Amino acid sequence: MTTLDVETVSGLLERVREQKPLVQNITNYVAMTLSANALLAVGASPAMVHAIDEVEDFATIAHALVINIGTLSPDWVEGMRRAAKRAVSLHKPWVLDPVGCGATPYRTDTAAELVKLQPAIIRGNASEILSLAGAAVGGGKGVDSTASSESAIAAASALAERTGAVVVVTGATDYATDGKALISVESGDPLMTYSTAVGCALSAVTGAFAAITSPLIAAGAALAVYGAAGQAAARSCQGPGQLPAALCDALYRADTALIGQHAVIAQRVV
Amino acid sequence: MTTLDVETVSGLLERVREQKPLVQNITNYVAMTLSANALLAVGASPAMVHAIDEVEDFATIAHALVINIGTLSPDWVEGMRRAAKRAVSLHKPWVLDPVGCGATPYRTDTAAELVKLQPAIIRGNASEILSLAGAAVGGGKGVDSTASSESAIAAASALAERTGAVVVVTGATDYATDGKALISVESGDPLMTYSTAVGCALSAVTGAFAAITSPLIAAGAALAVYGAAGQAAARSCQGPGQLPAALCDALYRADTALIGQHAVIAQRVV
Amino acid sequence: MTTLDVETVSGLLERVREQKPLVQNITNYVAMTLSANALLAVGASPAMVHAIDEVEDFATIAHALVINIGTLSPDWVEGMRRAAKRAVSLHKPWVLDPVGCGATPYRTDTAAELVKLQPAIIRGNASEILSLAGAAVGGGKGVDSTASSESAIAAASALAERTGAVVVVTGATDYATDGKALISVESGDPLMTYSTAVGCALSAVTGAFAAITSPLIAAGAALAVYGAAGQAAARSCQGPGQLPAALCDALYRADTALIGQHAVIAQRVV
Repeated sequence: MTTLDVETVSGLLERVREQKPLVQNITNYVAMTLSANALLAVGASPAMVHAIDEVEDFATIAHALVINIGTLSPDWVEGMRRAAKRAVSLHKPWVLDPVGCGATPYRTDTAAELVKLQPAIIRGNASEILSLAGAAVGGGKGVDSTASSESAIAAASALAERTGAVVVVTGATDYATDGKALISVESGDPLMTYSTAVGCALSAVTGAFAAITSPLIAAGAALAVYGAAGQAAARSCQGPGQLPAALCDALYRADTALIGQHAVIAQRVV
Repeated sequence: MTTLDVETVSGLLERVREQKPLVQNITNYVAMTLSANALLAVGASPAMVHAIDEVEDFATIAHALVINIGTLSPDWVEGMRRAAKRAVSLHKPWVLDPVGCGATPYRTDTAAELVKLQPAIIRGNASEILSLAGAAVGGGKGVDSTASSESAIAAASALAERTGAVVVVTGATDYATDGKALISVESGDPLMTYSTAVGCALSAVTGAFAAITSPLIAAGAALAVYGAAGQAAARSCQGPGQLPAALCDALYRADTALIGQHAVIAQRVV
Repeated sequence: MTTLDVETVSGLLERVREQKPLVQNITNYVAMTLSANALLAVGASPAMVHAIDEVEDFATIAHALVINIGTLSPDWVEGMRRAAKRAVSLHKPWVLDPVGCGATPYRTDTAAELVKLQPAIIRGNASEILSLAGAAVGGGKGVDSTASSESAIAAASALAERTGAVVVVTGATDYATDGKALISVESGDPLMTYSTAVGCALSAVTGAFAAITSPLIAAGAALAVYGAAGQAAARSCQGPGQLPAALCDALYRADTALIGQHAVIAQRVV
């Protein structure tokens, strides 16, 4: 595996900016705007397309797909299924964000069903990943995690081995694993937890990287770029209200220096 | 009744931050992001959950529910009904925001139906409350009010007596009444009327306070905290574009000093 | 035809602020908030109303209607149809934004169907207008244009002649034509392409102007005010994250001086 360091990450970000991948998002209402803006800020081309009548056609022209179950309803779930199947059939990567998995049976069941449709990457907080891996015992509070990201590493690794997906757990430290290697990224800022959709928009940005490189590298690079930008943003702004805009500004100007200053990347065997 | 002064309000805000109530929102597409961010900024844990398949399960774990009819459609209305009934059956408070009541028959009828499902608090502008109380004669312009908040006090009081809900009318001065006592809050800034969803997000924040105290106190405290933060935000920013972010920043840092500087709270018998 | 100069545009903006037209929007989830905020910033009164159960009632009280197909689904399309028909029957102008026309058959077919319902103004990027005019050969990338606005002038003019609508093509230079006269506006900033929904919100603002003047003048005035505000905003902010808020702030304070400084308006025969 490529060693993921700041230079590699920065090079991958440059590649996103050059290739401008078209990233289809079927995401929740709250996260749509920030997801689109974060994707634009890293140089990708976002589209929000969910209708059963066109998801497959769009998945055919998109370079990656992101599915986020934050605001579920039955017709959207059918759109998710069709888009995921089409993406997989065309060997295009898709990212699953199982928002609130564990909070209600509908949410847990939908996430479990989507996991079977071969996502390249699954990104959630600790409670969501623990629930999705079948390890949770009431571990969430709505869509917020009550567990630390460390506590979900074993579950993430097991989930990765079972599904073939790279699994990302975000928290104070972020982790990405394919069940064999584990990338950790220290970055971000607690202020990020006071702005909505910040995790969802990371999943979207992960889709942009997945369009241009392999899943584990994509996941690690997205964590480093996004976490570094988030930390830079949090330290430059006066509160959580300004954070989303500052985050996009930092993503837009992110380079080797910014990433190196605000993210510590490590990797090891699980 | 507790006398609502700045110290009491500030203490209730601290309690929200400590208890971090889980607030379920079934709200309009425009208001979702700001509602979630305002809830996070006061320390609550927001979730946007509307699907028929899970609203009841979620209402079971949430500490309060907020229903806002800003962007209506039939399946959402069914979700609203079910969530409200479940909340009431579990003695959890729910807040109704009858956006645009009076503008179309569908909107007026839906609001009238929801009012019967025992909301703890109803929050609207003067035109909406006048319409809901059956007193309006073409008193709105779409979702914006054409009447002053003062002109709706009598209607609010009658509506409170009829429904058992605390009724809040927002405008240049904000009022909350249970039909017996009337709390008034002077705060806010006219700039707030040039940013969308600012009223809707107040309803969301009212839900957070309703989770930790009685409806009239919750309504008054939310008005004071939110109005004070809005005024502080308006005076610190250059226009309505920056206002929502500045509002969340002010909510995040709100304390006794900020509330005392930007809100005047009074109460009397109706 | 009135010659559209900076003074005329500024006078029309004042008229919007005085008349505060009620603008109904059936628009995509990503664009709703910015559209509402941009409309409020120019002094209009926005409402987002899409349900089949009320679109016609609302179109009856609104002064203009904006239909944007960014996030399509079948029940929304039916709402669009009904609202457009009602608006036309009451001689109220409506604006069509054919987002992503050409990207999928569903999108292209829906746009083609809506064009037949007599929009007063059609606003798109070059790829969308080329597709809608039947001239495109794979000219888009999702919802982003891969063609220059100049390359779509002939198609815009033909589309205007065929449909009777004023057609607006936005890009580095913006154009509006009724098939006979062509207004061009040089304004804006490339940074605007890194924030989502900026084009959609222009369509919304165009609706506000269409409520108070004839379609070609409305389209040109909206381009000048919005483009000037966008340029002023882009030059005052640090990145695309801050742009939407800065844009609304600039729209709110826009006057003859701001428009004159940031927009060059010209007109000629096609």
